[in-house]
Amino acid sequence: MNSPSSLLIIRITAIFCLLLAVALWIPLLVDLADGNRDWEVFAVTSALISFLSVFMIVLTNGRETSFNIRAAFILVTVLWMATSIVSALPYLFSVYDISFTDAVFEAVSGLTTTGSTVLSKIETLPRGLLLWRSTTQWLGGIGIVAMGIFIMPLLRNGGMQFFKLESSDRADKPVARIETFSKLLVSIYLSLTALNIILYAMAGMTWFDAINHAFTTISSGGFSTRDASMMEENYLVLSIAIVFMLAAALPFTLYMGLLLRSGGMWKDGQMTVLVSMIMILTALMVAFAEFPVSFRSPDKIIHSLFTVTSLVTTTGYASIDHLTWGPAILGITLIATFIGGAAGSTSGGFKTYRLMILFKVIWVTLKELRYPNGVFPVYFRGQQIGVNALKAILAFTAAFILTLALGTVGLTMTGLDFDTSFSGALTALANVGPGWGPRIGPSGNFSELPDVAKWILTTLMLLGRLEIMTVFILITPTFWEN
Amino acid sequence: MNSPSSLLIIRITAIFCLLLAVALWIPLLVDLADGNRDWEVFAVTSALISFLSVFMIVLTNGRETSFNIRAAFILVTVLWMATSIVSALPYLFSVYDISFTDAVFEAVSGLTTTGSTVLSKIETLPRGLLLWRSTTQWLGGIGIVAMGIFIMPLLRNGGMQFFKLESSDRADKPVARIETFSKLLVSIYLSLTALNIILYAMAGMTWFDAINHAFTTISSGGFSTRDASMMEENYLVLSIAIVFMLAAALPFTLYMGLLLRSGGMWKDGQMTVLVSMIMILTALMVAFAEFPVSFRSPDKIIHSLFTVTSLVTTTGYASIDHLTWGPAILGITLIATFIGGAAGSTSGGFKTYRLMILFKVIWVTLKELRYPNGVFPVYFRGQQIGVNALKAILAFTAAFILTLALGTVGLTMTGLDFDTSFSGALTALANVGPGWGPRIGPSGNFSELPDVAKWILTTLMLLGRLEIMTVFILITPTFWEN
Repeated sequence: MNSPSSLLIIRITAIFCLLLAVALWIPLLVDLADGNRDWEVFAVTSALISFLSVFMIVLTNGRETSFNIRAAFILVTVLWMATSIVSALPYLFSVYDISFTDAVFEAVSGLTTTGSTVLSKIETLPRGLLLWRSTTQWLGGIGIVAMGIFIMPLLRNGGMQFFKLESSDRADKPVARIETFSKLLVSIYLSLTALNIILYAMAGMTWFDAINHAFTTISSGGFSTRDASMMEENYLVLSIAIVFMLAAALPFTLYMGLLLRSGGMWKDGQMTVLVSMIMILTALMVAFAEFPVSFRSPDKIIHSLFTVTSLVTTTGYASIDHLTWGPAILGITLIATFIGGAAGSTSGGFKTYRLMILFKVIWVTLKELRYPNGVFPVYFRGQQIGVNALKAILAFTAAFILTLALGTVGLTMTGLDFDTSFSGALTALANVGPGWGPRIGPSGNFSELPDVAKWILTTLMLLGRLEIMTVFILITPTFWEN
Repeated sequence: MNSPSSLLIIRITAIFCLLLAVALWIPLLVDLADGNRDWEVFAVTSALISFLSVFMIVLTNGRETSFNIRAAFILVTVLWMATSIVSALPYLFSVYDISFTDAVFEAVSGLTTTGSTVLSKIETLPRGLLLWRSTTQWLGGIGIVAMGIFIMPLLRNGGMQFFKLESSDRADKPVARIETFSKLLVSIYLSLTALNIILYAMAGMTWFDAINHAFTTISSGGFSTRDASMMEENYLVLSIAIVFMLAAALPFTLYMGLLLRSGGMWKDGQMTVLVSMIMILTALMVAFAEFPVSFRSPDKIIHSLFTVTSLVTTTGYASIDHLTWGPAILGITLIATFIGGAAGSTSGGFKTYRLMILFKVIWVTLKELRYPNGVFPVYFRGQQIGVNALKAILAFTAAFILTLALGTVGLTMTGLDFDTSFSGALTALANVGPGWGPRIGPSGNFSELPDVAKWILTTLMLLGRLEIMTVFILITPTFWEN
């Protein structure tokens, strides 16, 4: 690989690590205010990372750099791995006995906004560390949206080319446009977070809890400040959570379009499909769940809607342990965990637009089987889906199922039962959070799993977040040819 | 729909039902020889079906008929449903208390060569009924091969267009060619069956058992004459079964090519891939299974090889309850149950050639992500995979996963646990036979499931056998337009 690209990758990675070093000041100040000695951990980590990052930035300063598609692929993976390591340090250095495996798991689960946790009795941890967990998700969240809007469409992975910003605003210059869009995105993300914090606080949360939960709601993350997740919250809080989880799973370009008064061109039906799927799954859950006898209709509806929204948006909060509602729940949970939110949102999973394209392809293929000589093109966002996009979507779908299957096989080989293995692999790959079975369900956590299983899950979380093929490509010989 | 097509569909269906009425004479004669009064059931059923079939044939005789692609789709589904009902009658009319649901389940499981059973204490059933079960699989098996070689390539479903016979022997006339190929196919099927019967008998089976098991080996069916399946057989029998299960899962065009001395043009790597996958999964099983302490190396190898071959070829025999070998087995079982055999064989599942195409598409897509302006066509059997074939394969893959997911959801809603629901849906859709979990694993059977669950599984077996889209197409409005 050519040296100017390497320099740029190092430089950008260092800048992002420096950003994390700055973010470490937030928990540092909280622990300092609380008189908790854990502030030293944040101070040391922040200093170390700042020094290394600045060193790298200075070292690469003024040197010729270049950028190409290969560098973009390497950058995406390197960036997430480097920031994961940095985010793991406060766990590793803390006085709490957190192993290297657990620290990396928790950091990756944070930055990928998965929300699975290996920590238990979370409420006993110092407020600084709790805030750090939430902050990793919040930062991961905006990183994911930025990646989904600016980078993934260029990499054309799994049909993401349909979301190129170019197709809308031809008048602007590219760089100016990216600057405008970036500022807009940051404003939207900050506004949504602020609004969510205020509403959570008004609904009865402490400010600390409101900040933490808003950070992990807007990012589709799902980390909570308590083992019980949202199980002790009132219906007002749950309702606010439902609205903001959904808001975070919609394409952020939709909000940009609204602000730029060019809404029409962003519309692609993802919102309609996402909301419809949540409604259908909620209705099925209300109809087929075996609720506790004490449940009245409003209880059934709100807990079902919360659970489905939490899973479909890949947030992963629990308002109740829905797995106690009989076997029919698991089928619905399976579908809800798989689906995922919109492209250009903070959520993960298979993604709404891919499901839409798959259904269109099934529909068109049924026509083509009937009329073998007819020509029935498939359209998405006004563009015809050509042979390259079809290959990309087929490859992504196959890679998703293959990774899920191999992940399941790998987890069973560490001695885990099938339910835990399959649901663990799925929830990690889809960046949701909870699986099912007694161990990793909404009432459990991932702490008791063997280390090998944790590393498999960590890998799956990263693969899912980076849309699989973006990582697979790094191990092909073609990629490294000059 | 136009009337001449309807007449032809009725006519062909009646001919196949008449064939079944003739086949009913086999168990009839066996029961008569045994002095078992169940022969009357076969006599009545045969007479009834013969009468109705001949009536239909006479009624449609001499009338103008026509055939088109729509009629082909309707015919395939109608044929399998009608023959399923006919095959169910001997169970329904027998003195054994078999419900309508169970009779249809067992008949569909037979004709689709799935091999799941709702009958228990099978060894106590009269020999006539046992032979009828095996005969439905044997007839289903040749039906599947014929459909895979002659009809599916014309319907172009899920990439089957790559197996058109036209592409090889341009000199022949189409009708003469189909006649030649049909005769060849019947000879090959009969020869393989005869050879298998003789070898089973020589290895120690009774002639009756040898015939039944050869019928269900060559058809990738897996019905046995005992609850214990092949658990009490010696290693010689198991070895013969392994060879013939594999032979049945290879493309029958391969044998035709050998006989016609035009072998080269049939080669497409399916055999290599299938054998390699069996080897890899067997090696994983030997490495990761927790075998009983009494097991020596040969025991481990033969039972692992048998189990993997039985699942991958979608036969479904058990030489042992491998589910007692620890959790790691389930992951391997999942993969083995999914894969399936070659196109143009008697086996089901996702199919080897589709996996091959998916891997090629993943590989090529990784190149295209790296070089977005490059052109990297995908080839299979020497033909470029164009946009229509890509759509067809993507649609089939999506429909397979969707059907599996909805089947699982449906089964959980009947109150079944997740393991039973997921593995039941998978084993039915892939036409394998056993699932996992205490109820439907190799040591269990499907008798205790609720009726609704049995109907869901019956539907999945038919969907899987007819390659899903062939049935889906019937419920689209476009299909019925003139």
